[in-house]
Amino acid sequence: MEKEPLERKLTAILYADVAGYSRLTGEDEEGTHRTLSAYLDAITTSIERHNGKVLHYAGDAVLAEFASVVHALTCATNIQADLKERNGDLPDDRKLQFRIGVNLGDVIVDLNEIYGDGVNIASRL
Amino acid sequence: MEKEPLERKLTAILYADVAGYSRLTGEDEEGTHRTLSAYLDAITTSIERHNGKVLHYAGDAVLAEFASVVHALTCATNIQADLKERNGDLPDDRKLQFRIGVNLGDVIVDLNEIYGDGVNIASRL
Repeated sequence: MEKEPLERKLTAILYADVAGYSRLTGEDEEGTHRTLSAYLDAITTSIERHNGKVLHYAGDAVLAEFASVVHALTCATNIQADLKERNGDLPDDRKLQFRIGVNLGDVIVDLNEIYGDGVNIASRL
Repeated sequence: MEKEPLERKLTAILYADVAGYSRLTGEDEEGTHRTLSAYLDAITTSIERHNGKVLHYAGDAVLAEFASVVHALTCATNIQADLKERNGDLPDDRKLQFRIGVNLGDVIVDLNEIYGDGVNIASRL
């Protein structure tokens, strides 16, 4: 019997997480959390301003999607510029550097989440 | 000026994700998603039956917490027994093997999520 096809769509995927998050947390758990929390707020604001949608947060990571690759890339560039400025106020060993991957993918849609190679690739860029 | 202390609590953390998820997705995107979806449902049911609470899903991963380490460990054992049985019906290269880490941690609580070393360690066990 043929299975019902899964819902799919073409979307621009943005995945962001912190380089060395476990190490930073180990060195200063509360300080890292405060910075992370402020940076995630800034990232969320930027995603929404660029017509993107946050799909989930997971610890130091954010997964978002955009209807346009141009919007996703502009958003990623703006986030990096904003966080660079914010990191300027922190000592070197307390800076949080976000890695951001953007990928265009034909993804599986399930319960307001997206799955598939397109997502996995964005999270590894 | 002293900062407001962050909310903290002692909790039993359970983190589960799929070994080789990206490879499995690359080989059979929709088949892997169907199996993942069924297994995540089973894991969620087991967590709730053991008085645990799912904090978030992220792709192939689940983060949950329990008020009791005994409940968390019993839940992990039951999940592994259940998934072993389900995997028995699948060819070897289509089985999804979940890795489950359980850790007791004094974690930071923020917006219904938990953060800190205790969480990072559970996700690396």
